[in-house]
Amino acid sequence: MSLLVVGSVAFDSVETPTASRDRVVGGSAIYCSYAASYFSDVSLVGVVGEDWPDEYTQWLRTRGIDTLGLETVPEAQTFHWKGKYHADMNDRETLELQLNVFADFDPQLPGQYRECPFVFLANGAPTLQRKVLSQVNGSRFVVADTMDIWIQNETDELKQLLHEIDGLVLNDSEAKLLTGKTNLVEAGQDVLRMGPAFVVVKKGEHGAMFFSEQETYALPAFPTDRVVDPTGAGDSFAGGMMGYLASKGEVGPEVLKAAIGYGTIVASYNVEDFSLDRMKQIEQADLVQRMERYQAMLRL
Amino acid sequence: MSLLVVGSVAFDSVETPTASRDRVVGGSAIYCSYAASYFSDVSLVGVVGEDWPDEYTQWLRTRGIDTLGLETVPEAQTFHWKGKYHADMNDRETLELQLNVFADFDPQLPGQYRECPFVFLANGAPTLQRKVLSQVNGSRFVVADTMDIWIQNETDELKQLLHEIDGLVLNDSEAKLLTGKTNLVEAGQDVLRMGPAFVVVKKGEHGAMFFSEQETYALPAFPTDRVVDPTGAGDSFAGGMMGYLASKGEVGPEVLKAAIGYGTIVASYNVEDFSLDRMKQIEQADLVQRMERYQAMLRL
Repeated sequence: MSLLVVGSVAFDSVETPTASRDRVVGGSAIYCSYAASYFSDVSLVGVVGEDWPDEYTQWLRTRGIDTLGLETVPEAQTFHWKGKYHADMNDRETLELQLNVFADFDPQLPGQYRECPFVFLANGAPTLQRKVLSQVNGSRFVVADTMDIWIQNETDELKQLLHEIDGLVLNDSEAKLLTGKTNLVEAGQDVLRMGPAFVVVKKGEHGAMFFSEQETYALPAFPTDRVVDPTGAGDSFAGGMMGYLASKGEVGPEVLKAAIGYGTIVASYNVEDFSLDRMKQIEQADLVQRMERYQAMLRL
Repeated sequence: MSLLVVGSVAFDSVETPTASRDRVVGGSAIYCSYAASYFSDVSLVGVVGEDWPDEYTQWLRTRGIDTLGLETVPEAQTFHWKGKYHADMNDRETLELQLNVFADFDPQLPGQYRECPFVFLANGAPTLQRKVLSQVNGSRFVVADTMDIWIQNETDELKQLLHEIDGLVLNDSEAKLLTGKTNLVEAGQDVLRMGPAFVVVKKGEHGAMFFSEQETYALPAFPTDRVVDPTGAGDSFAGGMMGYLASKGEVGPEVLKAAIGYGTIVASYNVEDFSLDRMKQIEQADLVQRMERYQAMLRL
């Protein structure tokens, strides 16, 4: 089945303690779409400026990503994020943020996109995420991501959104911020009570936690000593998860857990190089192989 | 088979954001011995002052813990630690430290202790840990714990110890401190190269990582929303692990992984109340039951 992804498309300039890259491909919708494309068709909705090379769009298409929903605004520039990672690669600071065309992003879904059975609302203003929701068929399976700035500045709109989606994906610090709880299990359970049927809390190098009315569980990250650039790890996690769900066409507890496993595996590849460079080198078979190692690792 | 445990015996005074306890039973050797006693016989080596109630010693004996090696120093006081946990229960500060009899702890192993096939050297000065090693039969399976103060102040002695033991258990921050690495996988692998056949890195609420020449893996903590007092979590983890190994009498990769699983489970109970209060309420069957839930959680 097909997955609709709505989010940011960006150029990222990234500094790490050992290397840096200038204006490489990034953005939540790109990481998520690419990660999902290992498993399912993807319909992408985003916006770019005239500085976005057409070859990038072509390249996305070769991955089975429909780019009809990728709007180009003439005489304007693509969203540009510049950031720097500190020594332990867990903390980062934003050095520069040029929203450019993303500031006025007003997603309009092409007709056929509205029937996508799976929808991922990548990190964005809850107002904008709800605008997308109003355009899709009501029976879709919808998962959203969110971020500290929306938790702080659009609390009411976000809380409304939480009643309209099936799943929420967010970071550990965001779950604590949203609930005021310091224990992560309590925080996850509190987010669950705000509306969604399930909550996935991302913990970066420590893996992820899952919460539903029936289950609470934690899964570790796949251990890697090659963390070159963590940018997009959370988005590729979500993309792998959503792509796998779309490929299965169902969302029972076992499929959801396997989906989180595949999200973990895609993310573990993503951090091994800048931008999508590492993901470009691998195929679904690599993911399946690492997934088998992950499953063996967790067998006790 | 029998497990020898050498470490501190203490009174702990603990403050958490919601409650506090004054002079309750604690110390690395106590947490470790009690946790191990679910699985195997334990021979305890430690030192207390005349303020240590004899009923505590009797109580340890009812758990199959041999206390012949628990020395009482007359006219002296037991080690007393006073600490305070901050809001997220991960950080703590030491408010007061009275080493008392522990300052001059010079462990002398009773004759029959020297033949224990499994040995755990709980956190202590490497000099002291090596003194114990010199008293045990050379073919024993030895695991040690260590701490930031020894990494900083007894580096050479610690590095010597690392060549004389089979396994090392330490915290994530300590592994980074010992190696200067910021990536935990790299840090664990570096510690491994310092001598031991395996390294277990404890990550508190995020679980543990295992490193050997053949394997690197991560296991999550058992998720609990009831974290009352984390004191002794690392020691009960190590105790559960060592007790399980001693009960199996072998240390192959599968047994080691199950042992880390049981360490995780014992620690998850330990944090549910102050001191050993929660552990006192449970039996081996409870551990087995939670272990089954943990195994199911990790099945994907």
